[in-house]
Parts: sequence; C-alpha cells; structure tokens
Amino acid sequence: MSNLNEKKFFNCSNYTMGKLTSLLVMLHNEEAGADIENEMKRRGYRYTIGKVGAMDLVKVVTAIETSAKSNKVIDPNSYREVHSLYHAILEAIQGIGRGTVQFGDILRTVGLTFCITRGTVEISGYSEEWLSVCIYGTIGAPKKGFEHDVLGFGYNHI
Amino acid sequence: MSNLNEKKFFNCSNYTMGKLTSLLVMLHNEEAGADIENEMKRRGYRYTIGKVGAMDLVKVVTAIETSAKSNKVIDPNSYREVHSLYHAILEAIQGIGRGTVQFGDILRTVGLTFCITRGTVEISGYSEEWLSVCIYGTIGAPKKGFEHDVLGFGYNHI
Amino acid sequence: MSNLNEKKFFNCSNYTMGKLTSLLVMLHNEEAGADIENEMKRRGYRYTIGKVGAMDLVKVVTAIETSAKSNKVIDPNSYREVHSLYHAILEAIQGIGRGTVQFGDILRTVGLTFCITRGTVEISGYSEEWLSVCIYGTIGAPKKGFEHDVLGFGYNHI
Amino acid sequence: MSNLNEKKFFNCSNYTMGKLTSLLVMLHNEEAGADIENEMKRRGYRYTIGKVGAMDLVKVVTAIETSAKSNKVIDPNSYREVHSLYHAILEAIQGIGRGTVQFGDILRTVGLTFCITRGTVEISGYSEEWLSVCIYGTIGAPKKGFEHDVLGFGYNHI
Amino acid sequence: MSNLNEKKFFNCSNYTMGKLTSLLVMLHNEEAGADIENEMKRRGYRYTIGKVGAMDLVKVVTAIETSAKSNKVIDPNSYREVHSLYHAILEAIQGIGRGTVQFGDILRTVGLTFCITRGTVEISGYSEEWLSVCIYGTIGAPKKGFEHDVLGFGYNHI
Amino acid sequence: MSNLNEKKFFNCSNYTMGKLTSLLVMLHNEEAGADIENEMKRRGYRYTIGKVGAMDLVKVVTAIETSAKSNKVIDPNSYREVHSLYHAILEAIQGIGRGTVQFGDILRTVGLTFCITRGTVEISGYSEEWLSVCIYGTIGAPKKGFEHDVLGFGYNHI
Repeated sequence: MSNLNEKKFFNCSNYTMGKLTSLLVMLHNEEAGADIENEMKRRGYRYTIGKVGAMDLVKVVTAIETSAKSNKVIDPNSYREVHSLYHAILEAIQGIGRGTVQFGDILRTVGLTFCITRGTVEISGYSEEWLSVCIYGTIGAPKKGFEHDVLGFGYNHI
Repeated sequence: MSNLNEKKFFNCSNYTMGKLTSLLVMLHNEEAGADIENEMKRRGYRYTIGKVGAMDLVKVVTAIETSAKSNKVIDPNSYREVHSLYHAILEAIQGIGRGTVQFGDILRTVGLTFCITRGTVEISGYSEEWLSVCIYGTIGAPKKGFEHDVLGFGYNHI
Repeated sequence: MSNLNEKKFFNCSNYTMGKLTSLLVMLHNEEAGADIENEMKRRGYRYTIGKVGAMDLVKVVTAIETSAKSNKVIDPNSYREVHSLYHAILEAIQGIGRGTVQFGDILRTVGLTFCITRGTVEISGYSEEWLSVCIYGTIGAPKKGFEHDVLGFGYNHI
Repeated sequence: MSNLNEKKFFNCSNYTMGKLTSLLVMLHNEEAGADIENEMKRRGYRYTIGKVGAMDLVKVVTAIETSAKSNKVIDPNSYREVHSLYHAILEAIQGIGRGTVQFGDILRTVGLTFCITRGTVEISGYSEEWLSVCIYGTIGAPKKGFEHDVLGFGYNHI
Repeated sequence: MSNLNEKKFFNCSNYTMGKLTSLLVMLHNEEAGADIENEMKRRGYRYTIGKVGAMDLVKVVTAIETSAKSNKVIDPNSYREVHSLYHAILEAIQGIGRGTVQFGDILRTVGLTFCITRGTVEISGYSEEWLSVCIYGTIGAPKKGFEHDVLGFGYNHI
Repeated sequence: MSNLNEKKFFNCSNYTMGKLTSLLVMLHNEEAGADIENEMKRRGYRYTIGKVGAMDLVKVVTAIETSAKSNKVIDPNSYREVHSLYHAILEAIQGIGRGTVQFGDILRTVGLTFCITRGTVEISGYSEEWLSVCIYGTIGAPKKGFEHDVLGFGYNHI
C-alpha cells in the first residue's frame, strides 16, 4: 500500500463519503484506489466492493445485500440496518434503470461493480451514521459489446 | 498542464467514455482531472463542465442543455442532436431523483455539477457517436448542510 | 380521558406502531381514539396529528414536516431525523397519488389528515426506533363533493 | 353479533365507504369490527375480507380478484365490473409498493389482509355505485420479523 | 357528407370504439373522417374533437375535461362520469409523456388534438358503456420544428 | 396495388412519418393501407408490420426487436441502431402499460400489432434519420373478450 504522505493521487481528505464511494467503485483496480481506501480507513468507514452480472433483478439486489452483510458493513441481525441498506440499494438501482426498475423483463442485462460504505458524518454539530451505495458497470442487450456504461447511487441514514 | 508521459494519475487510456465523463465531473478541480481531460482531448471528444443550483427542475434541464449547446458539444440547430441530449439529460436526472423526477415540488433543492461528453466509440467494428451526461452534487432540504450526495448518469447515441 | 381498565374500545395492546398510527388518523375524533392515544403514550411513542388541504404538493410535504418538527416528534436540528421523516412522507404520498406524485399539476386537490408516530420497536431482540406516517383524507376534482377517500402510509427507521 | 343499539364501539353511521373498508381490514378480528360490518350491511354494501401471502405479485392480484368474484362483490361475467375492480386493486398495490409495483423481483415479500367493498354513494344528488379496496399487512425481507406495516387503498366507480 | 352506401373510405363497421376514436383524431380533417363519424353516429356514440397547446400539464387535462363536458360526452354533474373521464385522460397522457407525466417542468411543450368517445359495447352478452380518449400531436423543445409525433390512448368503463 | 393517381383513400403526402406509421398499424388490412404503404415507399422509408400476443413482457420486446432486424429496418450489427430501436420500443410500451411497464406480473395479457418505420425527415434544413414504433391491439384479463384497445407510440433519432 502506498505511503499516504509521499505519493497521493488525490488529496481526498475533504471528500464526502458519497464521493469516496463513487470514486472507489470506478478506481478500485488503480493505484489511485489505494488513496481512497486509505482515506476511508482513516475515517473509520466500513466498506466493501463486489461484482454481479445478471439479467435477473433480484440477483442484483441479493448480491449487494449479501456482500454488505458478509463483509460486516451492516449487522445482518438488525432489521433497522437491513432496512436502511435495502432502500439505499433500490435508490442506486433506479439510477441504473433510469425510468423503470427492470432488467431481464425488458430484455437487458447488467454487469455491475458496487461499493457499499458506512460511516459517521458530521452535520450541523451532529455525528450521525450514513450509508452510501454506488453501482457502476454496463447495461445492454444480451449480445457482447452491445452495452454501455451505467452509474447509480443511493444514500441513507443508518 | 501535466506532461502525459511523465506524471499520470490514472492510466485512463482504456477507460470508456462514460467512465471518463463520470470521473471528470468529480475530479475536475484536481490535478488528476487534467489526465482525464488530456485523454478526452487525445480521443477527440467534445465535452464541457458546468454547474447549476435550483429547486426548479426546469432550470436544471435548461442549464445542462444550454451548456452543451454553447460549448459546441452538440449542434443547437440539429433537432437530432438536441433530441439525443435531451433524453440523456432526463436519464441522468432520474438517477438524481431516484424514483420521481421532481425537486422543489417535493421540497428538495439541488446543487449540481455536470459533464457532457460526445465522442466516437468503436463497437463490433462500427464507429459510432455517443453522448454521455454525468451529474454529481447534492440534494436536500432547503436548509444548509441538510443535504447529501447524488449522482446520475445518462447515455445516448447521437 | 378514559380509564384504560374500565372502558376499552380496542384491546390494542398488541397492535403494531403502524396500525395504531393508521387507526388514530381515522378515529382521533372518536372516543375510541382515546384508547389508541393511551396505548401510544403507554409505550412512550411521540406522535402528532395535523391537517392540510391543498392543490399544491409542496404544501402537503411542508405541512407534515413542520408538524412533526414543531410537535417534537423529530429533532429539527438532526439531518438524520429530517431525512428519515422526509422519505416516510414521500412513501405515504405515493399511496395518496397512486401512480404519480402530483396533485394540482394534474387538476386534483386534496384534503388530508395525517398522523406521524415515532417509537421503539423490538425486532429479533433489537430495540430500534422507527417512524410511521399515515395520511387519510380525500382527493378529487376542484368541485365540492367530487372527491373520494385516499389513504397512504410510510414507514422508516430513524 | 352485538346489538347495535346497546353497545356501539363506533358511531360509524356517517363514515364514508372508504373509511369503513379501511377500518374493517384492520379491525375485523375485534369486537369493534362487528359494528363496522353491521353498518356496511345496513347500507346494503357487498364486501369481503381475505388474506394472501406471497413474493409473487401476480398471486396478490389474483387472490384479491378471485375473492371479490367468489364472494359476489362483483359479477365475474361483467367485464365492466372486472375492469373496475382491477384498477382499484392496482391503486391499492401502489400504496403497498410505494414507488414500484414489485415484490419478489426486488427481494421483498408481503403478508396481506384485504377488504373489498361495493356500495351506492350519494354525491350531489346522484346515486352511484363505487368500489373500494383496502390492503393492510406487512412487507419485508424474506426473514421472519424483518418486515413492517403497509397500507394501500384504491377506489373506483363501478 | 358522403353517402355511406356509395362511397366508403373504410368499411369500419366492425372497428372497435377505440379504433374509431384513434383514427378520427388523426383523420378528422380528411374525407375519410366522415366515414368514421358516420359509423360513430350510427352506433349512437357521443364524441367530440378538440385541440390544446401548452407547456403546462394542467391546461391539457383541463382542456380535455372541459371539452367532454361542454359537448355532452359526459354529464358534468355526475362524479362517476367525471371520475371515469379523468382516469382515461391520465392514461392517455401517460402515452404522451412516456415515462413521466410532465411537460413544461422538464422543458417540453405539446400541441395536441384529442377525441373523446363514449358508447355502449357488447362483451360476453353484457351491454356496457365505455369511454375512450385518444390524443395525437407533437411534443418537443420550445423551438419551432424541434418536435415529433406523440400518441396516447386511455380507456375506461363509465 | 392501387394506382396512386386514380384511387386515393387518403391524400397522405403531407403526413408525418409518425402519422403514417400509426395509421398503417391500424389499417394495414384495409385497401386504404395500400395508400399509406405507397407513400412510405415513395419516401424511401423502411418499415415492417408484425404481431405478438403474450403475458410475458420480454416476449413483446423481443418480437418487435426481432421483426425490425430481420426485415432490415435496422442493422442488427450496429449497436447504435439497436439502441435507438430499443428505446423507441420502450416508449411505445409505456403507452400500452399506462403507468407501469408490466403485463403478466399484474395479471394482464396483450395481443398486439406493431409497425416500425425508419426514414429521413427534414427539420430546419437538416436531413436526419428517425425511427417510429406504433403498437396497437388489446390488453386485458386472461379471459376471452375481457380486454380493450391499447395504443402506444415511440419515436427516436437513429
């Protein structure tokens, strides 16, 4: 891992949690991704990155939810936390679907990378926990190459 | 501007147009943003970055459309190009709205930065022009600080 | 106020918070309403009842939000609590709108009573706070009597 | 059944058909439910109460439709009546879904009680038949206890 | 007006009410339109044709509703009939809006011709009255020529 | 085929591409349909007419897409053209669905005829290619006769 003082790709110390999450989902394979992860760790955020490809919408929801639970971003035994995550996922999927929350039912397939982050944010003197979900990938026809980028983002209090 | 061979923050030469657009909207004030812009210029993309803050949805649509026209990303006299941009903007706004395309009508306000990019993409041996719109910023109550990140993305053939 | 042991209209001691909220919005002017309120107080719930009539959607959102803040159901200085309430209100309004979140824009007007309740709920051994919003009233044409009942309900963790 | 003159839980003689329907779906197992049923019978309303639990949306639509037909709330051989009921059901399900008419497709399951009522209503001197559908129950993750209340309501002329 | 036995443009005697309505809205200025109108009159249908141009959605709803009332297609004093028409109009507007029921709010304007028809239809031995609304015209940017065709259709029992 | 100069049902030489497409889908079995087809051929439009009946939404999308590809209305190897067609189909299906893009999931079935047309249109001195999709048919309960007309229309640049 890079030494934060020597080699910074971004000076991301003033980025919001949502911005870090969104950049990480796109840059996690880059050297720059390490800077983002370092910043997230420094702040005590809990986060995970995962992938899912499907025509079946429920598989996408399930994959993101399972990833957050098994990587301890949320407590799977707290309904409150599961509820918060669920709505953040749905919001992000609305950005992916752009108008209708359907994939295979309308003959399109997705290949997605997602990042789920949880952390404490200071707003007006209150320290409160929030959750952000960013999904980046491709959507398209079930034919190789006939697809384009998509990006979705959800945010919720936890 | 940085020398591309000496100091690359990203090796973004294999990024899609959508990924470059989305990263630029978040990083345009960073040194890393120069790498993205250089890559976009190298490929001959036409792009612009702008900002808009409003409770009034139509102001957001108008600001993005006007920016693309006045910065020559699209030809304002071609209905075809205006139509393509319009639908890409609406797609991106659906990611911002997450479920309903309304801002002030449901008591929320937005502060947004957007990037519109147009370029030629090779798919299965065809060279075709596409347009991508990424919007990043905040949405929230009309009270300072009571807002969180949003991200929306639209893509269309042109 | 009725003596809970002597005269119970409902034995509502096993009702969910959502059910109490929904019954109260419809029965708050009845004697039976006192039983519901007593049960809510016994559990330590914070709640309020209000009314709003408008063609203008934003007035409905504002009236419900303001009522919850000024009656201490939520802390107006906590963005987390405001965010939770906001999404619960939008959910309830989707039940009122049934397909589109618009009133005057599509030539309809509403006369609504709402109840917002906040309380601790035990789920799988976890004590967690939730918020429920129920809206009951009429929707219709801007002509006296040309209206029918509507009911909407939203629920969120807080 | 309670004697209406001696023991009234509600004096519901001035309630709308929609309000009676909504209260009955929540109180049909209570003594108070008898008062509501008596009032509905006194007015000559035709109604039925049923239950359905499913992840599959079409099972919910089918269960409600079948219940109304087999309990003679509507005439199953009249397309007009079937059409009226169908749209009232969809409206009620929009209150349940709050933003998207999907259950299992987005990893949620429902356990619902519904009441369908049909009756003549006087408006501005016209006697006209209307139909109301109220659905009350729970929605949640496919895990016991990880669910919360939902309420949906639809209304149509018949 | 053409003699029905001598000169028929269409033999439209077996067309549904919806098909006649949709053809009339597109052909009412043609000679062929007379055949459609004759068939509608022969069947005893009540119908009207009107026009509206606006950026303001509520003006479109109002214009269609007012036209149906003042031309006696529906009885403006019957809430049942007004309710039926209202939902048929909203359905037709959803075809015009394609995804969101908004015009000026998202920077688009419409120029529309509409036809509202009411008639008795035989289905499975039942004679029942239905209403159909067809809207045809243009939608586009607020710039002359930057617009394209739109078509919307709604149908309801009355 | 009819001689255009002798026997014209419509003088459709000034009709838009969208209007021709919509009329053809309704009149293709009539003599008048030949006039429309002649006009479309005269202008060099590429078009096709097909049918599909299903409860399964994806079958409808697939049938329309396949018909356009196999009848050379679009080039199946150009993602740009496939993308344009796909969004025009979705728009038309929104007019069919009127509020929700679902068929069998909400217990309804469709029997549809569709026409897809592609042609060059002159707007403000620019010659540009556009695509229009019109769908006409019936939607209803899975019971013979319990169905009514539907009409949907989509339009896109290609």
